[in-house]
Amino acid sequence: MTQELVQMAAGARSASRALARAGGDKRSEILLEVASQLSRRTDEILAANAADLERAEETDLSGALRGRLALSAAKLATLVQGARQLAAGDDPVGRRLRATRLDDGLELEQVTSPLGVVLIIFESRPDVVVQIGLLTIRSGNAVILKGGSEALASNRVLVSCLRDAAQACGMDPQVVCQVEKREEIAALLKLDDQIDLVIPRGSGEMVRSIQQSTRIPVLGHAEGVCHVYFDAAADLDRATRIAVDSKCDYPSACNAAETFLVHAALLPRFQPVVDALLAKGVEIRADERSAAALTGVSAASPEDFGVEFGELVVALKTVDDLDEAIAHIHKHGSSHTEAVVTEDTAVADEFLAGVDASSVFHNASTRFADGFRYGLGAEVGISTGRIHARGPVGADGLLTTRWLLRGEGQVVSDYGPDGRTYLHKPL
Amino acid sequence: MTQELVQMAAGARSASRALARAGGDKRSEILLEVASQLSRRTDEILAANAADLERAEETDLSGALRGRLALSAAKLATLVQGARQLAAGDDPVGRRLRATRLDDGLELEQVTSPLGVVLIIFESRPDVVVQIGLLTIRSGNAVILKGGSEALASNRVLVSCLRDAAQACGMDPQVVCQVEKREEIAALLKLDDQIDLVIPRGSGEMVRSIQQSTRIPVLGHAEGVCHVYFDAAADLDRATRIAVDSKCDYPSACNAAETFLVHAALLPRFQPVVDALLAKGVEIRADERSAAALTGVSAASPEDFGVEFGELVVALKTVDDLDEAIAHIHKHGSSHTEAVVTEDTAVADEFLAGVDASSVFHNASTRFADGFRYGLGAEVGISTGRIHARGPVGADGLLTTRWLLRGEGQVVSDYGPDGRTYLHKPL
Repeated sequence: MTQELVQMAAGARSASRALARAGGDKRSEILLEVASQLSRRTDEILAANAADLERAEETDLSGALRGRLALSAAKLATLVQGARQLAAGDDPVGRRLRATRLDDGLELEQVTSPLGVVLIIFESRPDVVVQIGLLTIRSGNAVILKGGSEALASNRVLVSCLRDAAQACGMDPQVVCQVEKREEIAALLKLDDQIDLVIPRGSGEMVRSIQQSTRIPVLGHAEGVCHVYFDAAADLDRATRIAVDSKCDYPSACNAAETFLVHAALLPRFQPVVDALLAKGVEIRADERSAAALTGVSAASPEDFGVEFGELVVALKTVDDLDEAIAHIHKHGSSHTEAVVTEDTAVADEFLAGVDASSVFHNASTRFADGFRYGLGAEVGISTGRIHARGPVGADGLLTTRWLLRGEGQVVSDYGPDGRTYLHKPL
Repeated sequence: MTQELVQMAAGARSASRALARAGGDKRSEILLEVASQLSRRTDEILAANAADLERAEETDLSGALRGRLALSAAKLATLVQGARQLAAGDDPVGRRLRATRLDDGLELEQVTSPLGVVLIIFESRPDVVVQIGLLTIRSGNAVILKGGSEALASNRVLVSCLRDAAQACGMDPQVVCQVEKREEIAALLKLDDQIDLVIPRGSGEMVRSIQQSTRIPVLGHAEGVCHVYFDAAADLDRATRIAVDSKCDYPSACNAAETFLVHAALLPRFQPVVDALLAKGVEIRADERSAAALTGVSAASPEDFGVEFGELVVALKTVDDLDEAIAHIHKHGSSHTEAVVTEDTAVADEFLAGVDASSVFHNASTRFADGFRYGLGAEVGISTGRIHARGPVGADGLLTTRWLLRGEGQVVSDYGPDGRTYLHKPL
């Protein structure tokens, strides 16, 4: 098996290089062909999806999972539209990031470039196959996909649409590869020479297990322990809306809030925020000082701080000042998304400057931390790491750079104390 | 020991956050104080360096290593000047990379941000302590340094200049930490939660060993197997100059050329290039086809291709066309620096577009691949990886990003099919 997977990865590498070299117009042509494949083969796709859904009934998959598994003609039409938009959009490859004249006739530029081969592991949503395939083709990369077993039939047809589109345009279909067995992942994660980036999209447990079993860089997040700090100068109406939205809009999302920090001076006026949360069915676990001042809350244990509840439970703690709030966030947060609610601009500026996290908000719900909401188009993941990409990641996370130097025969021994000097003129 | 190192790394994290929050003017103030410490303590530094040099005599260190170990008043003056230039230069932290109006009164920006804690492992050059310390302070990071044991006394004084400067400006001296024992490295490499990036500067063996023993991202390169492709349309004078400079200017450098590829149509005219190399004492190991057409060359074995000789030896192979040259480079290269020599613009463009490497050159020596020559100022390393930074890396490699969102109480449940729509207007 390993030998086959090594060959698959090597084939993906070679296909990605050919795709990179083929140019942006060729990549647009493939995207348009994907759109037409998806339109032409709608019945075939929906039939495969119906088979997956039927199996899901038998294996008693939860309603939520079934909802994510289901495709429809409308969903496919949206994907077709997305493919056409991407095809018409700017080519992200070869964008000039920096240009310097090193000397007369010696010009350096730094340009964006495809990463190479990306391994993406995700769960039951088959539309992810198309979204990821479109993004990787647009950015000149090859992708190896591993979807959930519950979407096997749907994923197979969608992958074949992507591969057939590449082939119809004269490109190597190995720009999109698929594996179906869990054991294959373990083997692929060993190929750190062949695969450039792994993006796991799923439970924290799954992400952690992948991070711990590979030397390939992993883009993603295992946890989202987000805080909202309600400052002394918080507007109570805004505080209430942000508290309810951050906690209740989608409690299992990684960008939902898990802990509220309340400035001691606000605490005597904080009951209306608590009442709004209670009305939504939220269980509030408060530290001793907060509990003494508020009604309807239960007692927090120290372990409640730094936990991703993922449901309608929130920890609440009173702090004396901004520094204590920031220190608490740095100690217990997961560098995902942290928000301050205040009308005091100085406090807001201090919070935005001082909090070390991928997203830091003033007077806005933590739930805005999302690639679509940020306007990045499709999202390949949200990274809480600091290397390569941080926060919600769009196509930029699938790019690296190359330095191109164009000369007229220059050599370095011409330069030095007794020779020519570098101009280093920005262009 | 491990517990002390965990505390050191945690202290470095906390110091880096304080330094990040303190603002660019404070960081400039520290850099100026470093400059004045270095000036004031020149005698102390040179005395420590003299002690290191004396020990080196005893342990019979090679002349080249002694040359790299030696400091002088002139070298220190250059470092002082560098510190003042960095202090006066732009603050790289907080630079706005992207700004989007998500809605009226809801503005998102992506800004540069310090990475956090960087571990740097290097060999005998004590001036690296100052260069790296200046770069990490400028970029708001904390650094843990491990220098070579042969420079121990020099490194200690230089580290104390950096730490004392931080302290004199009211900042935590743990922005610069030092370890001295090899076993401490092994323990630090386990702290992937505490340390954000490792930069090893030294032999390929050292870099590979670090890459294989840590989950912390590693920035650097283990090998530099660089090629020069001499196209059918190469200018012979340029070809000769580039061949000699790429191979002979500094044969042990990572950006020196190891293999020359010659187009079959150029081969009958290639003898002058060979003669210039022979005159410089280069041993040329040629494949059968090349050897039959050239004089003064020896026979290459297949193992000579893809080797980093690091001395005055070069492998030479004849290819039929550009595609064969690129395929050979992709098979045997290390993604470091690849060059084409040609007067044919179409071939040059194809080469620049088609070669997957961190630096790709047209009509210039591979030796230009270097942070100083690229105009990046000091260089933290050269990366042949694809993630985070690629090629020669300056201060940018020590930065990540944060997303800042400023609102007026907006929540995501206001948006959707029946609510508000996102503007996503670039600012």
